[in-house]
Amino acid sequence: MTRAAESADLLAAARAGSPRALARLISLVESGNTRVANPARSGSDGVGRGGGAHVIGITGSPGVGKSTTTNALVAALRARGRRVAVLAVDPSSPFTGGALLGDRIRMGDHATDTGVFIRSMAARGQLGGLAAATPAVVRVLDAVGFDTILVETVGVGQSEVDIAAGADTTLVLLAPGMGDGIQAAKAGILEIGDVLAVNKADRPGAHETMREIRSMLRLGARMPRAWRPPVLAVSAANGTGIEELLDALEAHRAHAAADGTLDARRRARARAEIEAVVLARVRERVAAQVADAARAVVAGGSDPHTAADEIVAALG
Amino acid sequence: MTRAAESADLLAAARAGSPRALARLISLVESGNTRVANPARSGSDGVGRGGGAHVIGITGSPGVGKSTTTNALVAALRARGRRVAVLAVDPSSPFTGGALLGDRIRMGDHATDTGVFIRSMAARGQLGGLAAATPAVVRVLDAVGFDTILVETVGVGQSEVDIAAGADTTLVLLAPGMGDGIQAAKAGILEIGDVLAVNKADRPGAHETMREIRSMLRLGARMPRAWRPPVLAVSAANGTGIEELLDALEAHRAHAAADGTLDARRRARARAEIEAVVLARVRERVAAQVADAARAVVAGGSDPHTAADEIVAALG
Repeated sequence: MTRAAESADLLAAARAGSPRALARLISLVESGNTRVANPARSGSDGVGRGGGAHVIGITGSPGVGKSTTTNALVAALRARGRRVAVLAVDPSSPFTGGALLGDRIRMGDHATDTGVFIRSMAARGQLGGLAAATPAVVRVLDAVGFDTILVETVGVGQSEVDIAAGADTTLVLLAPGMGDGIQAAKAGILEIGDVLAVNKADRPGAHETMREIRSMLRLGARMPRAWRPPVLAVSAANGTGIEELLDALEAHRAHAAADGTLDARRRARARAEIEAVVLARVRERVAAQVADAARAVVAGGSDPHTAADEIVAALG
Repeated sequence: MTRAAESADLLAAARAGSPRALARLISLVESGNTRVANPARSGSDGVGRGGGAHVIGITGSPGVGKSTTTNALVAALRARGRRVAVLAVDPSSPFTGGALLGDRIRMGDHATDTGVFIRSMAARGQLGGLAAATPAVVRVLDAVGFDTILVETVGVGQSEVDIAAGADTTLVLLAPGMGDGIQAAKAGILEIGDVLAVNKADRPGAHETMREIRSMLRLGARMPRAWRPPVLAVSAANGTGIEELLDALEAHRAHAAADGTLDARRRARARAEIEAVVLARVRERVAAQVADAARAVVAGGSDPHTAADEIVAALG
């Protein structure tokens, strides 16, 4: 059986509800060993469909309760009859199996529910890294027919910002007592939030944190925007505010679909994926020349920019 | 005056001790508008020198006290007669002026000391991003004659790992009560530390945190390594343990110089910089084609990998 035929079989089995087929298909896509047709294209191969999933990015500093909130959102989505996929993306874990460990611990809550699929992705091993692999896996989950795809990222680095920026709707989670205003501004994540939520809202300082965030959002709002990101109080551990949070996330999607930002984000997501794959291939192609040039630089024979110019010129 | 002549003048003035000339030179280098000769090359242009600075990367989650520890290390280095540059790199701040704000607040401690230079860098605006700009600015600071260059990164994302990997010596800072073992493993930063320090060691839980880190390091040590990363207790706010920390950082450098890892890291740093510039130029070159392809993908006409292959093939 060819790889393409195997992929088509796996996709059919995944659509029929086999989590094992889906897991195998994602592994193939992650490793760059197969391609799943664009779900927006309904081709004669019978593979095209989907494109209708709501992709929600969830981000925030370690400790704000991303996993707990994600689990609570999954429960609320299930209660509304949605099929849900969770993609836990861990750009900060290039070395360890941390993501997989966390994954197994979290599976417990929804382990027996076939309407929920949970998958972790770590940073290494894919062509083009997470910037390419995340949208590729999202496309698979979309093609399989999930209604909502939660993409949870750990940390607040540039890669998390990029991944979150690829979602239809981005939820930024905060918590009281996570640091002063400068820390929050440094994190630079307020601006990417379509919906902001202060978790652990039953703890001291929650009110002040919400007020602070609202005032920073006002400072940061340089342009009038049609969508005004709401700041909600939730307490994911006991389910408080989760329904309202989900309402806000779905309201944003409806708004984005109506005003064209949804399409713009999907183009941006496709652009990021294409660019990541292009650059990964170029990187492979020039690797030996770059290594030679680096030796020359350290030996004192060249400077990096001149060396780079020569390599680019030789590309053709 | 040509750009090259201006750069040479600025470099001479910076070496003579002008912080204003140095700041201007760094701005030119950051924006890709000039190149400073490789400090390892002592050419007839009189520009070559240096290459002797100890580049120390400092990383850790928000809230562990990176700024306080950096300030304490600066004071200890000054007491040892070293000229010190601090580069505060903020990959997570693509939008705000947070880094500059933090910078100005921190400048207070060493504002009147001409042996200290402090500079912030945010994520956007340079060709090749921080991966290219950080080593370029480090090279300038090295050429100017600083003995020690502290590169402090905010957050624990992949970009921080990459930047830290470019240092001669990497210090990973932790603090008690920053989350459980899984969080720490997820952060994936233990493995990149040549020296690990638990800050706020006077607080409850510090002893447990150190024990936990030591046991995780043992689990993670798959290969026998000549250098065993020490785990130190410090309390940067009152200066406790800072001398021992500095001793450990300098001991690592001596060790790395002796066993060849210092040269290997410098090659890796040059490689990362060259690669970042090459990829940035390729990115510019293919931008229009990528945008067209992304529109086609969203419209259902193509899939991202096929589009990427076509773009790479057209590169020549």
